Amino acid sequence: MKPGTIYGVGLGPGDPDLMTLKAARIVQNTRHIAYFHRSDQPGHGRKIVEGMLREDVVEHGMAYPMTTELPADDPAYVSALAGFYECWATRLGDLSEAGENVAILSEGDPFFYGSFMHLYTRLRDRAPIEVVPGLPSMAAAWAASGQPMTWGEDTVAVLMGTLPEERLADAMAGADAIVVMKVGRHIEKIKRALRQAGKFDRAVYVEHASTGAEKVMPLVEAGDVSPYFSIVLVHGQGRRP
Amino acid sequence: MKPGTIYGVGLGPGDPDLMTLKAARIVQNTRHIAYFHRSDQPGHGRKIVEGMLREDVVEHGMAYPMTTELPADDPAYVSALAGFYECWATRLGDLSEAGENVAILSEGDPFFYGSFMHLYTRLRDRAPIEVVPGLPSMAAAWAASGQPMTWGEDTVAVLMGTLPEERLADAMAGADAIVVMKVGRHIEKIKRALRQAGKFDRAVYVEHASTGAEKVMPLVEAGDVSPYFSIVLVHGQGRRP
Repeated sequence: MKPGTIYGVGLGPGDPDLMTLKAARIVQNTRHIAYFHRSDQPGHGRKIVEGMLREDVVEHGMAYPMTTELPADDPAYVSALAGFYECWATRLGDLSEAGENVAILSEGDPFFYGSFMHLYTRLRDRAPIEVVPGLPSMAAAWAASGQPMTWGEDTVAVLMGTLPEERLADAMAGADAIVVMKVGRHIEKIKRALRQAGKFDRAVYVEHASTGAEKVMPLVEAGDVSPYFSIVLVHGQGRRP
Repeated sequence: MKPGTIYGVGLGPGDPDLMTLKAARIVQNTRHIAYFHRSDQPGHGRKIVEGMLREDVVEHGMAYPMTTELPADDPAYVSALAGFYECWATRLGDLSEAGENVAILSEGDPFFYGSFMHLYTRLRDRAPIEVVPGLPSMAAAWAASGQPMTWGEDTVAVLMGTLPEERLADAMAGADAIVVMKVGRHIEKIKRALRQAGKFDRAVYVEHASTGAEKVMPLVEAGDVSPYFSIVLVHGQGRRP
């Protein structure tokens, strides 16, 4: 039997209208749809495709065994997650072997900080697998900010808010434009790092870009807690005629 | 009269199937379509939308007065480009005032190193203007590479190949994952900078990602000239369970 294809489908930042034509077609035409979610929530990816799925869809909700209960370097966390990804790689690989196509939903872009990658590395030698790139959430954030992000020869640093303050400040000082993702409860540390780098006053805070809950404000006006899906931007100021 | 909206439409990396649903709809429904191009070429943006335009389309080809004939910091270059952008901002602004919608085509994402930004800053106080983000070419490049780009807390540096070698090498040394855009005739300098940073062996070269002319190879196998639309990637190796 010809094996089915496993698609890693980038859904973009949240607005279904910002899915690519290719992603929308695969989501609409594929019977087996798999997506990650927290056990207590339906999952952002699943929400984006609401109303788009086939009538006979088979949904595979992949509930993380844990999210932030343990630090990401705790051996118990690593082992629980590894087992979880192994298990789902086997289940989705079996579907492919049985001739079924499977679409794995990925918020943003599948190869850019996505959980999909953990399945990809476990499946790529076993099943035909195709990656459909998606609009990264940072592109929706800078569109929402109303300011061009990078000009001429501007350099960009993309940084995770979970990094230590000194590492953040160093990278911020050396870059022309800055994107900080996974801001969440790290926002105060990010503010301190930006102050150290002399770039706090220019920083913009964007929450839930491209969705109905979108908020944009100068970082100086943002509170001291923020949702996980928030982004801090410092726009480049490079050459322009 | 109600002014028309000017759309900055991100077309994505080249494959029309990687346009967003929103971008495709605006391209198909808007009568006035404007796009940048070299005077001797039709323009990549225009090629992407071939076959999608209205029958009664009015095309506004915006031919750069020069491209690489002069260095980008030459006063004559700056002045020629500034006049060019002023002129087109006025013409497109006049169309908006006359009640016409206009779509300005942008390869990749409009706010990420795009010529559109030069019109945006000149038009935003004059006309209703909406930015439709698009898939950056780098996302198509790393999808084509077949390797996940960033894991866990990996940092990313996005760099222009036009930068001086030392600046490139410093930024490359400090980042976990690297994207070098506008490789073109700078490829040998980029190779030297990656060697200095100890990352040459891992670098991947991608040309014309997502199009029929796509090529992917280890940078070590790439020749000493390359098209402008080529990208060099170094993939992150961060935490993974």
